[in-house]
Amino acid sequence: MHFAGRVSAADDDHQTLAPAQEDAVAERLAARQRPIAVSEFFLKNRHLLGFDSPHRALLTAVKEAVDNSLDAAEEARILPDIRVEISERSHGALCVSVEDNGPGIVPEQVAQVFGRLLYGSKFHKLAQSRGTQGIGISAAGMYAELTTGKPLRVRSKTAGSSLASELVLSIDTAKNRPDLHRKQRVAWAVPHGTRVEFELEAHYRSGPHSVQSYLGQTAIANPHARLTLVAPDGSVQSWERGTEELPRAALEIKAHPHGVELGQLIQLLRDTKCSTLHRFLCEEFSEVGPSTAHAIIERAGTRLTERSRPARIAHGPAANLHRAIAATKIRRPSTDCLVPIGEEQLLAGLRKEIAADFYCAVTRPAAVYRGNPFVVEVAAAFGKPGGVGLELMPSGQIARRRAPELDTARVPDAGEPVLLLRYANRAPLLFQQGACAITRAGTDTHWQSYGLEQPRGALPVGPLCLLVHVASVWVPFTSEAKEAIAPYPEIARELHLALRDCGRKLYAYAGRGAKLKREFEKRAHIRKYLPHVGLALQSMLELGDAERDATVRRLEDLLERRRHV
Amino acid sequence: MHFAGRVSAADDDHQTLAPAQEDAVAERLAARQRPIAVSEFFLKNRHLLGFDSPHRALLTAVKEAVDNSLDAAEEARILPDIRVEISERSHGALCVSVEDNGPGIVPEQVAQVFGRLLYGSKFHKLAQSRGTQGIGISAAGMYAELTTGKPLRVRSKTAGSSLASELVLSIDTAKNRPDLHRKQRVAWAVPHGTRVEFELEAHYRSGPHSVQSYLGQTAIANPHARLTLVAPDGSVQSWERGTEELPRAALEIKAHPHGVELGQLIQLLRDTKCSTLHRFLCEEFSEVGPSTAHAIIERAGTRLTERSRPARIAHGPAANLHRAIAATKIRRPSTDCLVPIGEEQLLAGLRKEIAADFYCAVTRPAAVYRGNPFVVEVAAAFGKPGGVGLELMPSGQIARRRAPELDTARVPDAGEPVLLLRYANRAPLLFQQGACAITRAGTDTHWQSYGLEQPRGALPVGPLCLLVHVASVWVPFTSEAKEAIAPYPEIARELHLALRDCGRKLYAYAGRGAKLKREFEKRAHIRKYLPHVGLALQSMLELGDAERDATVRRLEDLLERRRHV
Repeated sequence: MHFAGRVSAADDDHQTLAPAQEDAVAERLAARQRPIAVSEFFLKNRHLLGFDSPHRALLTAVKEAVDNSLDAAEEARILPDIRVEISERSHGALCVSVEDNGPGIVPEQVAQVFGRLLYGSKFHKLAQSRGTQGIGISAAGMYAELTTGKPLRVRSKTAGSSLASELVLSIDTAKNRPDLHRKQRVAWAVPHGTRVEFELEAHYRSGPHSVQSYLGQTAIANPHARLTLVAPDGSVQSWERGTEELPRAALEIKAHPHGVELGQLIQLLRDTKCSTLHRFLCEEFSEVGPSTAHAIIERAGTRLTERSRPARIAHGPAANLHRAIAATKIRRPSTDCLVPIGEEQLLAGLRKEIAADFYCAVTRPAAVYRGNPFVVEVAAAFGKPGGVGLELMPSGQIARRRAPELDTARVPDAGEPVLLLRYANRAPLLFQQGACAITRAGTDTHWQSYGLEQPRGALPVGPLCLLVHVASVWVPFTSEAKEAIAPYPEIARELHLALRDCGRKLYAYAGRGAKLKREFEKRAHIRKYLPHVGLALQSMLELGDAERDATVRRLEDLLERRRHV
Repeated sequence: MHFAGRVSAADDDHQTLAPAQEDAVAERLAARQRPIAVSEFFLKNRHLLGFDSPHRALLTAVKEAVDNSLDAAEEARILPDIRVEISERSHGALCVSVEDNGPGIVPEQVAQVFGRLLYGSKFHKLAQSRGTQGIGISAAGMYAELTTGKPLRVRSKTAGSSLASELVLSIDTAKNRPDLHRKQRVAWAVPHGTRVEFELEAHYRSGPHSVQSYLGQTAIANPHARLTLVAPDGSVQSWERGTEELPRAALEIKAHPHGVELGQLIQLLRDTKCSTLHRFLCEEFSEVGPSTAHAIIERAGTRLTERSRPARIAHGPAANLHRAIAATKIRRPSTDCLVPIGEEQLLAGLRKEIAADFYCAVTRPAAVYRGNPFVVEVAAAFGKPGGVGLELMPSGQIARRRAPELDTARVPDAGEPVLLLRYANRAPLLFQQGACAITRAGTDTHWQSYGLEQPRGALPVGPLCLLVHVASVWVPFTSEAKEAIAPYPEIARELHLALRDCGRKLYAYAGRGAKLKREFEKRAHIRKYLPHVGLALQSMLELGDAERDATVRRLEDLLERRRHV
């Protein structure tokens, strides 16, 4: 729709009012201009980081710590063993500690890593990892101190050290700098690892957004990890490894030339250490060899040669170079940097955690958005064990069936929306489902073609659990809380294709359920209208009440039988 | 649902692997740790700022500039007059300029305001304004340069100056600092104002997410502003003022004690210039007078007195003080800081821009979330002019009616989802509808009670345009792009109440449409099943085909007439 304004003839007169106070306004405004520290920005906007409610805060804090532990252990090629312990403190506060068997952090870095937002090792690196921003764990500490006034406590030991270092620290939010309270060397009876502990205002709950459910979802996508949860009531639950094999290591790649933008290219040309344009193209980008570089420079026009000095290339030739890059066929980025879960592990993970009738999985080939390689995977668990939610009784009647109570998670009931499990780089996405490209792809897919019912503009309905995983060197999240994926068209396209592939595999099973469901509803309609028909017949044929009821019963019988054929 | 893990007996053995490379891992990781500039963070995550596609980038850039212009003009008590001009450059680039008649910016501040993220005057101030983050316009410049390599050009003149200053500048993204290319004094034939111009990769489109539609929606909520758009094809469109009166000025307030958190309180106690606790409470917070301060201190226990020195209060007593504040009844925050649009102006705005049958508006009283006052307003335009989308024909039949083609915007057709216009602090929210608390409140409201049809989990369906406005000193947006409001429970509650108030006002009108719609569908059902009944009767009563058809017709007639009564 449009909001039409009126077209005005004289549109460039400049309306001016000069009230008494106006002359001082610009000065008054200027006096208040000042820089905003990134930490005070996120303190005020803490919902951006996932800390807007005591419940979500707990999940986010645990997730940030566990993500870091998994990343560090995998990078050190250690099978991760992570223990989350939550205990109650007075007045609505919880004490959370997360301990891992990772490589540890060298003492000089601990304060920076935990006491400063936007500090880390993974931001400038093009390789698949869970964390990237250098915000998460420091933000958890910041939120913890905001709500309880208690600083963060970190213990870390690297292999070969005899003692661990233990630090107590806060973030100086006005300056975004660590504020170190205490630092000491302590004995710790583990060979290496990191333990972070904070006290925060938080609620421990059960249900779909619980720490338990989060760890369970993490276990599905990370069968190589061993996870342990000690709940506030002291109960201990653990998710054992499904495999003793680490996922392949994710290799780091250089930027792909097709993902570079003009302004960025100009900046790179200015900053490079390479002395010729040919060398620059070969060194700074992935998938550009001497002959590709030659082809690009040829195409870029007469003002550029292989020996042009990058720093001296002006805006016009740089723009030509940018267009030449876009027009040159260059090999797709290498996908060594990606580590999908794989169809086999997806099926194993789902089977382990969700009871169902039928399982299938799809891993798409790698694709690229803005130069970043990514892979989409979809797996599905369908149908109540032994049925599809509605069942045809021996009498010919169709009945709703309740699933037996099980220890494991269940697919939803027949009339419920499907359960969607979203993952990015093997980490579960717990909130903001509505804002996620995965959800949007799910609602945009035409599930009716695959035998599922689907209300307009919504996810399909039925006994289905859908697992969708996006792995990329740079997952574009919709907020710093990393809860939903932004709908870049290339990602949306791959999601659609993967969901459709999965839909086709589901078709035979889902179709059977859909047929039963349709039949069930048609019969309900018939039952609803037959009494009206009975009344009409009664007045047409002057029947008595008993005759009318008998006719209705006979009609019902006859129609049911007819439909049955 | 739950993800149950297995309970394990031996859960605290620490699994360790020591591959050859492990000892060096912590050092290798440490070598890569480094700070991340906020500008490089947002450059890589530019979808967070609303710059993920050329189409959205244009809207975001225009919106950031117009928001700043409206804020500055209102603060200077000038009736805003804003001109947006968009022209085409080569290779998919657009040149955008936004010029206002505001107070201008003093020359020393221009480079900081436009050349640095997280710099501004509104972040630390508790008063309603459109911009707050000090990110938007600098981010637009950053995106522009990223995509076209061209720097930002700003011209500004303050009242009383003979010349304007004109700057050409970039953002040094690795350092988040302005990089000034050129600065000069130029003649400008306006008394005061600011003009910002940038060239960016962008698409100009028409439709619901067009610059035109954005300005039209801005005009509804800002009837005191005059807006002009010069489109790439040279056509000029303007939205004239609906009133010559400026909205009341939004006053600045101090933080409300009920919104302060323990960690924040401890920080305030440490930083205050007040020498006694009593004075501290009265000076640093709004709505705390001497007697309220006295009551709080009384309640906080014996370790605190009115003369306690704030900087010397330890964690324990500070926590007691925090609980005492929460337990003390304190006047709600003053709402001078809020400037709702008001029911009268809402109705006038909707009437001017959207043709409909029936209009209503609700402005709720102010409420508070995390100490921040806010107001929710809802207005509705319902029904095609002269009808409700379905109409009862003189013959007794119900027919779908199409609206006549109009110049102005229209409410949706009878079977379409309602049109939802979302606003925060008088600025339209254009994207991320699914992630917004306003949308969620709309889908959670039980519209069937107010006579509207509603698919499960979705917005209602029908010829309705809903305008929802949230005004606050601090609107919690779900991302820096300021496109959706985070669902804080207090805000969600007020949204529900406002939507329900509006629903009640709609009831009489909407109910009529719903009744027609229900009738329409029931008749469709009857028509669908009567042929089956006919076949059944034929076999029961051994009728001929002609008799059967006649019976069906008689039944249909009879049932329609019966329903009619």
